[in-house]
Amino acid sequence: MKAVKWFGAGDVRVEEAEKPKIRNDTDALVRPTSACICGTDLHVYRGELLSVPGTVMGHEFVGVVEEVGPSVKRFKPGDRVISSCWIADGTCWYCRHGYYTQCVNINIYGMGPVYGESLDGAFAELVRVPYADTVLIPAPENVPDEKLVTVGDSLATGFEAVVNAGMRPGDFVAVIGCGPVGLYSGMFARLLGASTVLAADVVPERLAVAEELGFAAVNAAEKDVADEVRNMTDGVGADLVVEAVGRSVEPLLKAVETARRKGTVSVVGYHLHEYSIPSGMLWLTEKKLIFSIGDPIRNGETITRYIQHNRIDPSKIITHRIKLEEVPQGFEMFAKKQALKVFVKI
Amino acid sequence: MKAVKWFGAGDVRVEEAEKPKIRNDTDALVRPTSACICGTDLHVYRGELLSVPGTVMGHEFVGVVEEVGPSVKRFKPGDRVISSCWIADGTCWYCRHGYYTQCVNINIYGMGPVYGESLDGAFAELVRVPYADTVLIPAPENVPDEKLVTVGDSLATGFEAVVNAGMRPGDFVAVIGCGPVGLYSGMFARLLGASTVLAADVVPERLAVAEELGFAAVNAAEKDVADEVRNMTDGVGADLVVEAVGRSVEPLLKAVETARRKGTVSVVGYHLHEYSIPSGMLWLTEKKLIFSIGDPIRNGETITRYIQHNRIDPSKIITHRIKLEEVPQGFEMFAKKQALKVFVKI
Amino acid sequence: MKAVKWFGAGDVRVEEAEKPKIRNDTDALVRPTSACICGTDLHVYRGELLSVPGTVMGHEFVGVVEEVGPSVKRFKPGDRVISSCWIADGTCWYCRHGYYTQCVNINIYGMGPVYGESLDGAFAELVRVPYADTVLIPAPENVPDEKLVTVGDSLATGFEAVVNAGMRPGDFVAVIGCGPVGLYSGMFARLLGASTVLAADVVPERLAVAEELGFAAVNAAEKDVADEVRNMTDGVGADLVVEAVGRSVEPLLKAVETARRKGTVSVVGYHLHEYSIPSGMLWLTEKKLIFSIGDPIRNGETITRYIQHNRIDPSKIITHRIKLEEVPQGFEMFAKKQALKVFVKI
Amino acid sequence: MKAVKWFGAGDVRVEEAEKPKIRNDTDALVRPTSACICGTDLHVYRGELLSVPGTVMGHEFVGVVEEVGPSVKRFKPGDRVISSCWIADGTCWYCRHGYYTQCVNINIYGMGPVYGESLDGAFAELVRVPYADTVLIPAPENVPDEKLVTVGDSLATGFEAVVNAGMRPGDFVAVIGCGPVGLYSGMFARLLGASTVLAADVVPERLAVAEELGFAAVNAAEKDVADEVRNMTDGVGADLVVEAVGRSVEPLLKAVETARRKGTVSVVGYHLHEYSIPSGMLWLTEKKLIFSIGDPIRNGETITRYIQHNRIDPSKIITHRIKLEEVPQGFEMFAKKQALKVFVKI
Repeated sequence: MKAVKWFGAGDVRVEEAEKPKIRNDTDALVRPTSACICGTDLHVYRGELLSVPGTVMGHEFVGVVEEVGPSVKRFKPGDRVISSCWIADGTCWYCRHGYYTQCVNINIYGMGPVYGESLDGAFAELVRVPYADTVLIPAPENVPDEKLVTVGDSLATGFEAVVNAGMRPGDFVAVIGCGPVGLYSGMFARLLGASTVLAADVVPERLAVAEELGFAAVNAAEKDVADEVRNMTDGVGADLVVEAVGRSVEPLLKAVETARRKGTVSVVGYHLHEYSIPSGMLWLTEKKLIFSIGDPIRNGETITRYIQHNRIDPSKIITHRIKLEEVPQGFEMFAKKQALKVFVKI
Repeated sequence: MKAVKWFGAGDVRVEEAEKPKIRNDTDALVRPTSACICGTDLHVYRGELLSVPGTVMGHEFVGVVEEVGPSVKRFKPGDRVISSCWIADGTCWYCRHGYYTQCVNINIYGMGPVYGESLDGAFAELVRVPYADTVLIPAPENVPDEKLVTVGDSLATGFEAVVNAGMRPGDFVAVIGCGPVGLYSGMFARLLGASTVLAADVVPERLAVAEELGFAAVNAAEKDVADEVRNMTDGVGADLVVEAVGRSVEPLLKAVETARRKGTVSVVGYHLHEYSIPSGMLWLTEKKLIFSIGDPIRNGETITRYIQHNRIDPSKIITHRIKLEEVPQGFEMFAKKQALKVFVKI
Repeated sequence: MKAVKWFGAGDVRVEEAEKPKIRNDTDALVRPTSACICGTDLHVYRGELLSVPGTVMGHEFVGVVEEVGPSVKRFKPGDRVISSCWIADGTCWYCRHGYYTQCVNINIYGMGPVYGESLDGAFAELVRVPYADTVLIPAPENVPDEKLVTVGDSLATGFEAVVNAGMRPGDFVAVIGCGPVGLYSGMFARLLGASTVLAADVVPERLAVAEELGFAAVNAAEKDVADEVRNMTDGVGADLVVEAVGRSVEPLLKAVETARRKGTVSVVGYHLHEYSIPSGMLWLTEKKLIFSIGDPIRNGETITRYIQHNRIDPSKIITHRIKLEEVPQGFEMFAKKQALKVFVKI
Repeated sequence: MKAVKWFGAGDVRVEEAEKPKIRNDTDALVRPTSACICGTDLHVYRGELLSVPGTVMGHEFVGVVEEVGPSVKRFKPGDRVISSCWIADGTCWYCRHGYYTQCVNINIYGMGPVYGESLDGAFAELVRVPYADTVLIPAPENVPDEKLVTVGDSLATGFEAVVNAGMRPGDFVAVIGCGPVGLYSGMFARLLGASTVLAADVVPERLAVAEELGFAAVNAAEKDVADEVRNMTDGVGADLVVEAVGRSVEPLLKAVETARRKGTVSVVGYHLHEYSIPSGMLWLTEKKLIFSIGDPIRNGETITRYIQHNRIDPSKIITHRIKLEEVPQGFEMFAKKQALKVFVKI
């Protein structure tokens, strides 16, 4: 079968790959019909994670079940499904408490051995899904792939950014970073009752999308986000700030500054380092720092219900539609921020 | 000054009235600029409450402060304000706990002596507002009266119907009754993250408005609401049902039937009698019955923030715009359900 | 094997019974080591439910797994377990949302065909447990049967009475009825942060236990509970009232009266009939009526953790300890309210 | 009058001071009957804050109202009261939202000009209380000073540590630091339904008190707290960790390590510096960092209700009882950790 493999920093190729097989009773084989390039893929693409040359990439996808292991009960061949990007066993202490993203057997497609076993991903004609009864989400009928394909990662992260941080009716929500996760966070903030969503970035095209989605867009290259928010709130600050940039301390510090006294910073940006944070200021102003990862397993049903009932349209941020063969070019565009969301028809 | 007075069942007249004066240190005098006829007014109009002939009616209004008593600190002459229809002293045990609608000195404009002292209402050129620092809500700038005038009663009741009942993200919400309170409940259910809002009534004009607001409209004269909801939810039922009809047991029983097992019935309809309810079924299916009155004092700031930021437009349900002199005709139309919401320019 | 069978109103006998066998892949066979007579058993005993002569009674028990079906994964022979009295399949829409007591395949031991299939109960040397992975709860080590035996029903109901009703720190909690469920409700109210627990009954022995548990005990035959609560709360009333009597409207009405304005009535008493309730008063005072059934499946782990760490001792209400052969006499005493909780060593 | 004044690091003297007077309409004069030395006082004592020589110290106290300004309504001379250590105006945006500790006019007694105006404190025969209607809390009858004196600071902080962090029924709570705030946090964790409270310190006398209060006491000089907690929780970690040491990064990092994945760290220790924190680990394990200051104004009524009903006895941690003249020696002992809580009879 054809698949998109990673071979080194910036080196992604479409090649032949061996078809995956059912290995465990709880596996399913799914034939992806659509997938997306996700921000997390960039870390692999750039060689920031220790992936293994030859790994099949891709972890945000919709598809059709092709085969199931003997213990799979909720799904059968022919079922249309979304996969959570996170693999969870569904039975450990964390899973039983609804903390699927902290499963003792946690894994993710297409990233190499970061969590142990390397799992081949979804930029391929067939993908093996472990613990299928837990990991797969039924796709609602009559909803096109475009609207469902991000449920398994970035859309679920946007939901978590707002819900896990305890957003309340009428909150002023500021979003730092207008990548897919930031924009989805803003969409959910509106959907769940924010009074205002302000979104900041430095890329004009992304700010234009933010504006179309009804957010107050702020170009952070020209204006200070914290100042803007204070101007709009009689000096109070934002009730909730979503930090959706990651990878460095600056956006996190700006988020902390933008939150009002007793306000909340919801960190969904990807962070891997030690940061120096102003503990004294955080204590004096009694702020909350909530670190979250999206959980499509716990929230997939609620999120797809919203899509099915046209309360949210995640396809609005798709800027490019390509074929499997064009994924390498898609990565190039996305890495240069020329594309916001790249949809791949398989 | 001119004022609309009640003299008996169906007998409402525009007459001369004496101008109110500051009586207590905490009073303010407000010059109403707009008001609305509210469903609760109908009970007075029909003579169902023991009002006093000559009482000035009207309790949903926006205006400008004309004069304040010496203890009033938050407001000064010239301030544009919304009044809560409920008068609360702001200092009793209930008020200090945020339960303003249960204040030991509770009262309401234009209803006669139902709560003790009879307070003249807002269908007039001037109205006396007791406990002004508690009862008045600042009107946001640049927002027309039409959008603010219902904050003080029916809009706040719609908010409470959803929030006090603990609606959760993605809930299927059914609203029984498409009067102003029912429609506002549905608007808030959508604003705060319901996946679907279904609204039932028997008046086609009201169902048309419900449809325009994005609700699934059900004509209860033709279809059974509980059946419709079960059809749309794989037999489960509604997570939350708002009963916004009142005055008889039937809509309440239908709401109980429409709610799913472990679901919630939020009762905001006006009830005054004993009802026979199926306690056995309620227990077996573990339902919740939440009785609520709207609280503009507690929630006025959040609600006006939504209006100011164009997240909700309460004027969408206004069907008639009249002058103070036309209030008697307005009542006639509203009582016959020919009008949905009658806006009065004063 | 020996078992306690029901043959008609007041007619309970110890007889020989056929040993149960594994019927479905998800079954387990459990050898009860201890059981209790529960209030719900009384309905069968008195013939109020249409049980089938010859049914083995008993649904509150601890035991040891003897055999498991091929699909059972969490348990193996030799494991010490508590069983939920409620049978739930663990996979239906309700179970997946944590509403186990509303499972589409709901059942209960020893009650006859009230929920479809008649399941033999635990006053026996062996019992068949359907859906064992869902229904069984691991028993913590080093904790005697006496402390665990009620987890599967009455203790879980006491927990639910308080938690499902949303008790808040510092609440004044009144409990109507000092049977096992009422006393357990009070114990959990204290454990979870009530400032005061008042408990009312008419049986002096039960009031004595209430007092030992630290509650303010009120003899409802001598004093009016609502008056007592108002006296203790400057006229305000109870934040939360647990109605734990059931079977008639009086305790429910007294609970409604005892709750403060905007307060909550948590109904865990067993009700099967239509009642006339004061809807007008409920609406004017904005009260909440929450009907709940205990859910040992959802809450068993939390409850056993409390027992294991000596935060609660459910054995404190056991008044009689008997052998399996003496269960008929146990029922007689319990039916006459001579016993509060009868523990059966098997 | 006699008063305890600060003159420099370690230099505290009992001297004559001028009697305070009513300066603003909302002031009250209170005659302290008892006070305590609080951990925050130590920062002044050691000269870590820029206090002004001659400042009267002391901010945790109970007393009797001597005189009130003309606008004070809730209190009159002769009323027994507790004062919040935090001064808040009760009318700003923050106060109206219940965030009294973030009032725009925030201040604290006896600390010098850290928050603007220097307010003389309560180790004196008379103290001026600004915004008395907001700042004072009614003292319940028949409860001795010893039990009430810490409500205004350290006890309210212990409450906040648990409640603001969203502790849930059955949580395993670890407390780092067995000073008054840590011990009070543990007491509230138990009172509000923790299954286990573990408390760590290096001072044997404090660990002995922790044990008496029913906590699992861990000597952090001998054992690693995070290891201990993991041993007690099958490797999972604590649901909630209270960091009650402050002043350096180590206890905060240990708290972060001790919390389980998706767990919460509640920071109530006093911090003034920038810290390097492991953002990558926090994100991967999805932890929450909640910084809180105690709020006696918001929670004073609930806390005193608990004391009045004997649900908590804050005097249990008092180790020394002295007179006003002995406060300098009291400070010496407390600074050397020879005393846990020093009660001053005035």
